[in-house]
Amino acid sequence: MNHSEQRQRTHELLQQKGIHRALFTNICSVKWLTGFAPAVQLGPNYFAGAPPLVWYESGHFTVVVQEGQAGSISHLATLDDCDLLTYAGYTIEQPIHGADRLREALVPLLRKSDGPGAIGVEEQDTTLLLSQLLDHTLIHRAPLTPIDRWLVPLRAVKSAEEIQKLRDNFALTDIGHAAARRAIQGGAGKREIDVWTEIHSAIQQAAGQRVPLGNDCVVGYRSPNNIGGWPGDLVIREQDNVIVDLSTVRHGYWSDSCATYYAGEPTAEQRKLHKTCEQALDYAISLIKPGAVAKEIDQNVRQFMRDAGYAVYPHHTGHGVGVTGHEEPRIVPYNEWVLAPNMVILLEPGAYFPGEYGARLEDAVLVTADGAEVLTKHDKSLP
Amino acid sequence: MNHSEQRQRTHELLQQKGIHRALFTNICSVKWLTGFAPAVQLGPNYFAGAPPLVWYESGHFTVVVQEGQAGSISHLATLDDCDLLTYAGYTIEQPIHGADRLREALVPLLRKSDGPGAIGVEEQDTTLLLSQLLDHTLIHRAPLTPIDRWLVPLRAVKSAEEIQKLRDNFALTDIGHAAARRAIQGGAGKREIDVWTEIHSAIQQAAGQRVPLGNDCVVGYRSPNNIGGWPGDLVIREQDNVIVDLSTVRHGYWSDSCATYYAGEPTAEQRKLHKTCEQALDYAISLIKPGAVAKEIDQNVRQFMRDAGYAVYPHHTGHGVGVTGHEEPRIVPYNEWVLAPNMVILLEPGAYFPGEYGARLEDAVLVTADGAEVLTKHDKSLP
Repeated sequence: MNHSEQRQRTHELLQQKGIHRALFTNICSVKWLTGFAPAVQLGPNYFAGAPPLVWYESGHFTVVVQEGQAGSISHLATLDDCDLLTYAGYTIEQPIHGADRLREALVPLLRKSDGPGAIGVEEQDTTLLLSQLLDHTLIHRAPLTPIDRWLVPLRAVKSAEEIQKLRDNFALTDIGHAAARRAIQGGAGKREIDVWTEIHSAIQQAAGQRVPLGNDCVVGYRSPNNIGGWPGDLVIREQDNVIVDLSTVRHGYWSDSCATYYAGEPTAEQRKLHKTCEQALDYAISLIKPGAVAKEIDQNVRQFMRDAGYAVYPHHTGHGVGVTGHEEPRIVPYNEWVLAPNMVILLEPGAYFPGEYGARLEDAVLVTADGAEVLTKHDKSLP
Repeated sequence: MNHSEQRQRTHELLQQKGIHRALFTNICSVKWLTGFAPAVQLGPNYFAGAPPLVWYESGHFTVVVQEGQAGSISHLATLDDCDLLTYAGYTIEQPIHGADRLREALVPLLRKSDGPGAIGVEEQDTTLLLSQLLDHTLIHRAPLTPIDRWLVPLRAVKSAEEIQKLRDNFALTDIGHAAARRAIQGGAGKREIDVWTEIHSAIQQAAGQRVPLGNDCVVGYRSPNNIGGWPGDLVIREQDNVIVDLSTVRHGYWSDSCATYYAGEPTAEQRKLHKTCEQALDYAISLIKPGAVAKEIDQNVRQFMRDAGYAVYPHHTGHGVGVTGHEEPRIVPYNEWVLAPNMVILLEPGAYFPGEYGARLEDAVLVTADGAEVLTKHDKSLP
């Protein structure tokens, strides 16, 4: 529990690669390695010297976090096999220079470091300040070697603990969808943003706390793009469709699910498209099993929509989900990834007539030993 | 307009310091230099190679942004004196490697660079990847020199354009406060999170779009900390106070204002404290004028609370606000900053009895030629 499995798998990977020391600074890596999820809703924490990071040395992990970070910092203190190093944040006694406090916290840790060989770093997220700290304080200076994306294949296969987090999170998102359906049916005259606030309120009231929320809440007559986007002040009219694609972020893990709702009675054209999306989604789910190849699933579902007479959606057929909202295995035309048990995948066929209407339906599935289990339970049916 | 004044002032500063080339990677710097505010509500954009950045060379500014960034990217295209360089984000045709796309976009720009002298970089936010790009592509390689916090003093004095943004934003936040008052008076039985969703919904419905929202919504009987924190599922009972401290973020600029509301009739003790906070806030505002010294304001307002018989609040008396929610001039015990016209400052005296009740009232003021103008209009009175 508590992501110890993730740390063990990472240790094994680094050993195989001959890396004895590594600095993880990508927030997805840090969340996955520790289960710690800093609050994101207002952007970067301006009291911190850097986002949370993880230092690895010879099988031992230390997570370094500014003490005032909103998020489940108390969780970190419970990890038996991972040290927690905090540094001061907000104070009224001196200027807030988070970088100085971070440096003071890290230097003693790095001064003790004496592992051999190159040091793995995530180059895309490690700051110059941190790399200089490595250079100046390590007993054994060593070249830095990039390890960006090394954890991506590991992250694609979920642990039992992660699957439980995702199940709980999909259930929370289902509550948002129920609110969306209520808000939109008979909701002609409301704006996209009005629907959105009903959704977000329902989710946060169910969670009993703040929950980050994406993705799309768009009325069908949007043009040129009625596929996705954040809610605005466009008014929903009688017979308009609204595509509602939601991701809630709980304990650092994303959900993702979509449905299409209608103000009043859908038209015959909307009904036909909606039914086709239902069939395409059922078909897509039927293709999910260990050994299936991502690009073949993608091609088959696109062909299904084409055969039904619809222009093929310009987006992915699906993708993985976890500590971020879009990860491997991407179900897209080029991707030769092979599905394996305990991957969690979204599937989301749709079709769009910009300026008029559109539809998309999306479920999440867990790849099982011989097929797929649908994790999303939201009502995607026609009214 | 369009932050050209900020770029001009930065150019003058860099010239004075003998810096001909500089890379700005701190998101506050980028927002302030360009007026561009990327969306923050869901954390870092996982399709981008880096957050937005600004390259400066000999008086010319180029902003570099991943093309799919939510935010007012169209605004950037309108800037006459600032180039916009975008790079590809989401695609289904190839793996999403934002860092590679960023590199491809930046290399031609850097290859043309031939300014003399050291290159200014914000070390705390510049990634190893970006610093390596500088090292490998510049015609004239040059040492990197840290410029973190160079813009902080410039940012403290607001332009007319910024003051208008802040005025608009404070008006939006006032709408949130009106919703908070409505939700809490007669709202015994609601939870903090229920109040919060009413506030956030009112703000977003007024804005017609999503708006990031901080900071505090805490019932008085919280213990040990009833000063601040995110809303949870604590139930508000009859006669409880709720401290509601709100920051909305609009066009990248933060607001900040606080009031204390009551479910039903406040007690005599609550009334006394509330009145004292009103007087302390009025007194604090009376101290604001050009030439006033931050730490003296702080000391005087603390002494006012002490003289009234209350334990002095453990937080700042106030602080500046702009592209971030807490910036100079900090009104704190050590700070020798001197106020100047067009600074925008929060003032927020309070007192707290953990486990029982507390109060804090906060206004924003603009430092004028000879005093202060209050920018916040929310009703902070007792019921």
